[in-house]
Amino acid sequence: MTELLNAPTYTDEAQVRASDRAHVFHSWSAQALIDPLPIAGASGSYFWDYSGTRYLDFSSQLVNVNIGYQHPKLVAAIQEQAAKLCTIAPGYANDARSEAARLIAELAPGELNHVFFTNGGAEANENAVRMARIHTGRHKVLAAYRSYHGATAGAIALTGDPRRWASEPGSPGVVRYWGPYLYRSAFHATTEAEECERALQHLRDLIMVEGPKTIAAIVLETVVGTNGILVPPDGYLAGVRQICDEYGIVMIADEVMAGFGRCGEWFAIDHWNVTPDLITFAKGVNSGYVPLGGVIISRAIAETFAHSPFPGGLTYSGHPLACASAVASINIFKEEGIVENARTIGEDVIGPGLRALADKHPSVGEVRGLGMFWGIELVRDRATRQPLVPYNAAGSDTKPMTEVATACKAAGLWPFTHFNRVHVVPPCTISADEAREGIAILDQALEVADKYYTGS
Amino acid sequence: MTELLNAPTYTDEAQVRASDRAHVFHSWSAQALIDPLPIAGASGSYFWDYSGTRYLDFSSQLVNVNIGYQHPKLVAAIQEQAAKLCTIAPGYANDARSEAARLIAELAPGELNHVFFTNGGAEANENAVRMARIHTGRHKVLAAYRSYHGATAGAIALTGDPRRWASEPGSPGVVRYWGPYLYRSAFHATTEAEECERALQHLRDLIMVEGPKTIAAIVLETVVGTNGILVPPDGYLAGVRQICDEYGIVMIADEVMAGFGRCGEWFAIDHWNVTPDLITFAKGVNSGYVPLGGVIISRAIAETFAHSPFPGGLTYSGHPLACASAVASINIFKEEGIVENARTIGEDVIGPGLRALADKHPSVGEVRGLGMFWGIELVRDRATRQPLVPYNAAGSDTKPMTEVATACKAAGLWPFTHFNRVHVVPPCTISADEAREGIAILDQALEVADKYYTGS
Repeated sequence: MTELLNAPTYTDEAQVRASDRAHVFHSWSAQALIDPLPIAGASGSYFWDYSGTRYLDFSSQLVNVNIGYQHPKLVAAIQEQAAKLCTIAPGYANDARSEAARLIAELAPGELNHVFFTNGGAEANENAVRMARIHTGRHKVLAAYRSYHGATAGAIALTGDPRRWASEPGSPGVVRYWGPYLYRSAFHATTEAEECERALQHLRDLIMVEGPKTIAAIVLETVVGTNGILVPPDGYLAGVRQICDEYGIVMIADEVMAGFGRCGEWFAIDHWNVTPDLITFAKGVNSGYVPLGGVIISRAIAETFAHSPFPGGLTYSGHPLACASAVASINIFKEEGIVENARTIGEDVIGPGLRALADKHPSVGEVRGLGMFWGIELVRDRATRQPLVPYNAAGSDTKPMTEVATACKAAGLWPFTHFNRVHVVPPCTISADEAREGIAILDQALEVADKYYTGS
Repeated sequence: MTELLNAPTYTDEAQVRASDRAHVFHSWSAQALIDPLPIAGASGSYFWDYSGTRYLDFSSQLVNVNIGYQHPKLVAAIQEQAAKLCTIAPGYANDARSEAARLIAELAPGELNHVFFTNGGAEANENAVRMARIHTGRHKVLAAYRSYHGATAGAIALTGDPRRWASEPGSPGVVRYWGPYLYRSAFHATTEAEECERALQHLRDLIMVEGPKTIAAIVLETVVGTNGILVPPDGYLAGVRQICDEYGIVMIADEVMAGFGRCGEWFAIDHWNVTPDLITFAKGVNSGYVPLGGVIISRAIAETFAHSPFPGGLTYSGHPLACASAVASINIFKEEGIVENARTIGEDVIGPGLRALADKHPSVGEVRGLGMFWGIELVRDRATRQPLVPYNAAGSDTKPMTEVATACKAAGLWPFTHFNRVHVVPPCTISADEAREGIAILDQALEVADKYYTGS
């Protein structure tokens, strides 16, 4: 009877699509203007539709499937935990929860020893800010313009990109700053070292005029994700750490996208040997096989809530099925050397491959990244750096980028595009041959972008 | 090898507890003052610890395990979907997501045909408010004092109970009202009909002074949950519906706790045949076996986002594993008559059983509820209705309630207590014998409360 209860009656794409169109309300979309592709299955670095068309995934969905699709050992671990205990409330102790927290704390830098589990990244950032405010007794949070931190009211108020606009006026207390981004420097810098120094000076100036004792936290994506794969210059994160120490400000590293192997390290911040006070995570912790996120908490902040209650929670905090999948995923990462694979394929294949594309295609303004986290910035003119499409382009203004994406898909590659950029963010388990296959398709697709090039 | 990867190394309670204390940060708690009980397993209406002590669960964890623990068909459905496809991003179509949306829309009243999936109830309420604000072009939301709507910034601002205090000042735009609660009437009413009429008049007065054209939504728990199991008088919800229609205000029914069988109906609001504009859900939709929540959306509100993008989303919206568990759970509910069981056991066993306790124990001020959703309000004096412990009691003030809970646990019953109340909220699958077993234990435990009785 089990089959009757769980298997949808859908045997073909038309039924999946019909119920989707009639009943599923999709995020970030005008419902009548979309036609979501029904996906029939996925494995490793590929997914496929009902016609059998297979796509090499250079997006990892929303940059979350770090372990690849349907990893058999991770699937088995979920099945095993499902048979054992799917759910128990946050108020109890549970072996899967205990072990997930222990493993994550063990991976985290410094004295970040406690884990507060959430269902995803937005809730993780919400609770990190809550902890910082209560720990410091201050209210303001500094957040970057080029950032995304989630879509709940607190997280969207932190978010710097246009996705926040429709939710304004929102939660109070966020002050926005400009982060380092040499290619489009807010500080008229010409070298990485100068960009670093000026970005830190900008933060200091902002803290001076906002009032250091009013600021609870500085939140940043260790490597900015959807807003551009912006790798901070060496010295920037250490500089932020120093500023936070000087003024008693909590440093929150949002590693929802950048963490768990994505940058070729367990945490992106390991690349610079900096220890923040709070790390938020989701996505790669278990590749989204079961919804899970969380906050890793310094000893000092945990102590603030030792004898005084932490005023936050959620029904599924520390969900056993989700935690068991994190335990399995971390152990698989270790056993299979997935973090090392992300670093090696990034350094040896993707980095060099994308730089070769830059040499060949005039529309490539810049290639940047590390690990399995790369961005190609497309421009109409290398001299003026005019983006291929305007910031936050909509409608027909997006045409050049849509054409690039369409060319990728037609050749069997699913790309991740945002504004005027193509992000190369495949599963961290990708092989060198798969990476080369995808780059070869990008090579063809960039010819579409080159047609819009107007520079000399 | 799979075993090595996923099975925690914990073979006894001490290890679970040690890692919990060292690494798990618990919600709503002072971390050094708690000692979370390690749970070894669960089945049906019972869970047990590592010593083998079994507890009959009158809490359904956080009132979410409506189908009971480890329902074999639901476990099998999760295992089957895990093998098929754990995750795919919100931008695609997927059979499990399509079917879950279709089934939920089919159950929902009126023209509530679209479902926006989230990870839980807080995100559902956040997005419902977002929809209402954009649909109406207005900003204010009316929310009740005695309410809980979640802990993210937008949801905690809706919340009326003390859990919001530490997060204030929070997201702007919430105006609070008093809902109907005859036992402690804000309106000095003496009958249900009078309470209903006066509560509606209070809403009308508030709308008048706040400005009807500034109000986007009225949000309410159809039956107020954690804040007291407050069943609205007949006519109240229809009255709110009429007020919303008069002023173009969106009616949001939060059924995160009250929905999916809890009140002996698929949706609590079915009890009164009222159709809100938005229903939020989580918990009972799949009993929390996989984190899932969502918003069910009226045709008119869905049309607002037909050609204009909805500005909200989350990585795990419409998560296939979560949606497959909802599909299976809804089908199991139908096959096994679980909604009917909740209604019948509530009417025939729990309601009469609790009223008999009220006859016997002077400390029982009121018994109220429906379906599998009951509350016992404990008082020191029936005449003055002085609660057994003060509102939001902490520390030693909670002693009488702690003693009642301890007495229940010592006798093998896990109760749900809040302020001066014991809520009786077992799984909707509970048998008559199990319900009687739990009520017999409550009968003993209430003798503890009676000792504090000071009335005549």
